[in-house]
Amino acid sequence: MTRSSHTIEPKGRAHGQSPLLGGATFELSHRLARVLWSSCWFAFARWTPPQLQPLRRLVLCAFGADIHPTATVRSSVKIWWPGNLKMGAHASLGPGAICYNVAAVTIEDFAIVSQRAHLCTGTHDIDDPGFPLRARPISIGRSAWVAAEAFVGPGVKIGEGAVLGARGVTFRSLDEWVVYGGNHAKPLRSRQKIS
Amino acid sequence: MTRSSHTIEPKGRAHGQSPLLGGATFELSHRLARVLWSSCWFAFARWTPPQLQPLRRLVLCAFGADIHPTATVRSSVKIWWPGNLKMGAHASLGPGAICYNVAAVTIEDFAIVSQRAHLCTGTHDIDDPGFPLRARPISIGRSAWVAAEAFVGPGVKIGEGAVLGARGVTFRSLDEWVVYGGNHAKPLRSRQKIS
Amino acid sequence: MTRSSHTIEPKGRAHGQSPLLGGATFELSHRLARVLWSSCWFAFARWTPPQLQPLRRLVLCAFGADIHPTATVRSSVKIWWPGNLKMGAHASLGPGAICYNVAAVTIEDFAIVSQRAHLCTGTHDIDDPGFPLRARPISIGRSAWVAAEAFVGPGVKIGEGAVLGARGVTFRSLDEWVVYGGNHAKPLRSRQKIS
Repeated sequence: MTRSSHTIEPKGRAHGQSPLLGGATFELSHRLARVLWSSCWFAFARWTPPQLQPLRRLVLCAFGADIHPTATVRSSVKIWWPGNLKMGAHASLGPGAICYNVAAVTIEDFAIVSQRAHLCTGTHDIDDPGFPLRARPISIGRSAWVAAEAFVGPGVKIGEGAVLGARGVTFRSLDEWVVYGGNHAKPLRSRQKIS
Repeated sequence: MTRSSHTIEPKGRAHGQSPLLGGATFELSHRLARVLWSSCWFAFARWTPPQLQPLRRLVLCAFGADIHPTATVRSSVKIWWPGNLKMGAHASLGPGAICYNVAAVTIEDFAIVSQRAHLCTGTHDIDDPGFPLRARPISIGRSAWVAAEAFVGPGVKIGEGAVLGARGVTFRSLDEWVVYGGNHAKPLRSRQKIS
Repeated sequence: MTRSSHTIEPKGRAHGQSPLLGGATFELSHRLARVLWSSCWFAFARWTPPQLQPLRRLVLCAFGADIHPTATVRSSVKIWWPGNLKMGAHASLGPGAICYNVAAVTIEDFAIVSQRAHLCTGTHDIDDPGFPLRARPISIGRSAWVAAEAFVGPGVKIGEGAVLGARGVTFRSLDEWVVYGGNHAKPLRSRQKIS
């Protein structure tokens, strides 16, 4: 299966009611696909110990994810839709991490997303009376670290080697090899570049 | 059942030990009522898909909640006591939201509380040696948005149309049609008023 | 059993691969001990109501914890390794609190850690290409309060009577009888000393 065939996009406003009125944001076929995805993860992956990463990768790839054989995704990770996820060599998603990938999420080689961190690609247009969903991709650069319980907002690009400290919250892109912390996150110091 | 008959208040210090010494904060009858409430939610609502909102509303209203027929409460929401909850037309509590309503929580028409946000009405008097619970009501104004994983402290009034951004944390009331973010939350910009 | 016999330390880099390459951070015997610990907590404590604190204390002490008979640990608390935990008289760990005690965590008399707060002793050396785990102890002083969903970083000493407000995040030690809030936490006011 190719990734593009699995990509899910919000339907246009012509297709349904505003989410404000309880209208569904996605087409019925997409919603059914996600129910199937959740069920398969629950059945074949949710209970697996860390060592069974190859099985979890199989389930993810069956739903269109592009996961390098050396990447790791813990069983307690919540992924909205695998077709929107791409992970490089030795990239990792830690226990309890939330990958709310309504738009694409890319985690490059050696990048680490720690326990209970949240990659959130979705928001709402607060100036549109219909409050429509807006989704923008997130990318986590090579060797970057999104530490425990941090939050990465829609459209953020985290540069190579950048660090977002524990509980850090960012809605802006982060520069390469710089360490950030706080909510909203600010630069704290530079990081020694790994050659 | 009327809402007032279900309202739970902390018992006075004369009634028991300080919470510092492990004393219970609420009367035994209240605690039993909450065990019953939790059990009923677990049995009749916790497993329900989004479409079964009418059933969840029935359970909530049986315990004294005042929920408009068009409001939505997801099955994974944690509500401390339904008798302290009032929700207007099209108001919503998203997946995993925490409504710690030791005091009243009011969510007005079209107001949205997103996934895993926390409405926290309780705190402790840190200058009283007995560390007693202090509870103050929270109100979320019409068309306001408390975004994902935000935190609203005791006594806060969120003005009509105000936005508390994702992971924002506030212990102060928010002005109408202003967007706030950060911890502690600060005003970021104004929001276009929906006519 | 003495506490020291249960203390777990990360193995040296000579013993295994970098965590970046998926190498385990702890010796196999330690990992098996923690599987046993998790299983026992699940079997004998996870389902217990608040009143069964003596049973939970028994389980914790069997794995090397040093818990005063009047201290309380709720059933939903997540403790990484009991041998690294010490709690004084009337100290408490609230519902859903996370005690990630890769290094020692000490909670002194009358200190309170509220619901879903996170005591995080572990981090990684971001300037070492091997990204090794670094663990530093946390201590919570007498009568201090770590409020709901706050975060305490590695090596932090929270002074006697200090308060870290709800959702507050600190990587620095906190002075005695001072109230802090925000991410990163800043001093807000002093607290009246309890005589």
